[in-house]
Amino acid sequence: MRTIDWIDGAIEIIDQTALPDELTMLRLENFTELISAIQRLAVRGAPALGVAGAMGVALIAADPRYAGAEEPIRAAAKLLLEARPTAVNLSWGVKQALRELPRGSDAVLKRALEIRDTELANSLAMGARGRDFIKNLIRGPVNVMTICNTGGLAAVEYGTALSVVRSLFDDGALGTVLTLETRPLLQGARLTAWELKQLDIPFHLIVDSAGPFLLSRGGANVVLIGADRIAANGDTANKIGSYSLASAAARLGIPFIVVAPESTVDMSTSTGEEIEIEDRGSFEVTSFAGKRTAPEGAETINPAFDVTPVELITALVTESRVVRFGMGDSLAGL
Amino acid sequence: MRTIDWIDGAIEIIDQTALPDELTMLRLENFTELISAIQRLAVRGAPALGVAGAMGVALIAADPRYAGAEEPIRAAAKLLLEARPTAVNLSWGVKQALRELPRGSDAVLKRALEIRDTELANSLAMGARGRDFIKNLIRGPVNVMTICNTGGLAAVEYGTALSVVRSLFDDGALGTVLTLETRPLLQGARLTAWELKQLDIPFHLIVDSAGPFLLSRGGANVVLIGADRIAANGDTANKIGSYSLASAAARLGIPFIVVAPESTVDMSTSTGEEIEIEDRGSFEVTSFAGKRTAPEGAETINPAFDVTPVELITALVTESRVVRFGMGDSLAGL
Repeated sequence: MRTIDWIDGAIEIIDQTALPDELTMLRLENFTELISAIQRLAVRGAPALGVAGAMGVALIAADPRYAGAEEPIRAAAKLLLEARPTAVNLSWGVKQALRELPRGSDAVLKRALEIRDTELANSLAMGARGRDFIKNLIRGPVNVMTICNTGGLAAVEYGTALSVVRSLFDDGALGTVLTLETRPLLQGARLTAWELKQLDIPFHLIVDSAGPFLLSRGGANVVLIGADRIAANGDTANKIGSYSLASAAARLGIPFIVVAPESTVDMSTSTGEEIEIEDRGSFEVTSFAGKRTAPEGAETINPAFDVTPVELITALVTESRVVRFGMGDSLAGL
Repeated sequence: MRTIDWIDGAIEIIDQTALPDELTMLRLENFTELISAIQRLAVRGAPALGVAGAMGVALIAADPRYAGAEEPIRAAAKLLLEARPTAVNLSWGVKQALRELPRGSDAVLKRALEIRDTELANSLAMGARGRDFIKNLIRGPVNVMTICNTGGLAAVEYGTALSVVRSLFDDGALGTVLTLETRPLLQGARLTAWELKQLDIPFHLIVDSAGPFLLSRGGANVVLIGADRIAANGDTANKIGSYSLASAAARLGIPFIVVAPESTVDMSTSTGEEIEIEDRGSFEVTSFAGKRTAPEGAETINPAFDVTPVELITALVTESRVVRFGMGDSLAGL
């Protein structure tokens, strides 16, 4: 089953806000529905957002209300691109599709479908490459700690970091997985745990702040994360909490590995300092399932992402290479 | 208002499970009610548990069903002592009160009330001592990051780390407070945010995993935590997530300070390796407010505490001294 696909002239997605209770599909027939779905995280994850961006432009370009007029199509695409500011893949997908606009809406759709197929192939390539790299690095069972959701639900299928987990599992090299629940929206508890259950991969769910401590007690021998944007120097924006694991892993000498497609690398951003961090407001932190969890009027800081400096990252695994930052490799050879 | 007190022959506590929605008092007239209140965290926090332990023995000793017979009283006290295994203050309070048992139930109660009064005085002493130490350490506004609840609700009044915050605030030296929500039971969001609101102390609430990242971005210039048990070498058991802050603070050169009464120091435990970590089971992690947050059957690891090694701790502030571990001080001179 695909997280996002193009079916009969519209986008269909798994509604990730309904998991783990229900597996339901949403059909998105225009770009405002898509923007809403992106903003409330019904579709999320860097690779999936790349596909969503491109398919979103295909929706706009085919909309009879625009009658193929480039300017309003580009204006609508800009709104789509801004739906989530930190995720570079969304804007990458939008831009890729817009390049085809002069050749008409069929060309735009063709490019969007290519991106979908490429993301799927990339997931498989990252899985295999990451598995081989880690098997070389770690003797005996590989016990993975991971945060947020980097599985099929974050991509088209298979995912990024979780694609590596799946390859390790299929290979018999996986011990177990420690999955951080990933506050405030619990993508680890709701989505990653659900995917691992479906795949019969052994795991334990933990609260986020237990991650560093369980690393210190031998709970995992590698940390695998995805990425939302990777700066030219290797600094990596990913789900809030990634930095906390990286900081502890560096202290403990545990490999910390980022798994992401090349499209996540943003050579126009020189370091992590330049990455805009989306603050998602108070609501997610001060209430849960309709119940207040903090006193009325409590203010929050709610960064959706953090930035892990490259000096804390052992390596980046993409569909085409392993960049061993810890050994002095750089991204420049892209 | 006191978190725990002895009123007309019974223990009265603020029901901390009802906050921040409602401020309600619970009256506990026998020790099984007290054990239940401790286990579901209606009363919690190291100093408050010390008082609860002593007052619990007073309840048992005065219970006409035991008719002053020492053996069954000691057996009941043992159940009380085991209600929470990591909290050394609970067992300390129980033992202190039991020492008076040969002199009768009035002597036991007298000792329990002394412990209550001492904890209150200790809170004020820790607040003043911590304030003076930190003002010497940090020039300009003190911006505190803290986890869990270490305020009046964790003690009789004032608290430990939050007593220092309050002293800094009263002194005009406090900038702001970043309060970690403290999963899974959200003591930071429910209790600390509520106390800070009551006191008009400026704060922002954050998810736990944002703590280390916000430290790296200058969000706070000191970390203040409480403690549940301090080993003879200074290793400190405290709420899960403390280690994560300590690990990041050490890397960033930010002072990490433990504030706890001397009764939290357990010289019979030589290092943190010997401290038993209570696992509170799956329920707290896989559901919230009656709603499942993880797929059916998801297994968890749910440590209530972690252990921060002494090499990550700048100093311990107690009611009677500052032990600067970072400068080579040790606890031995107790």
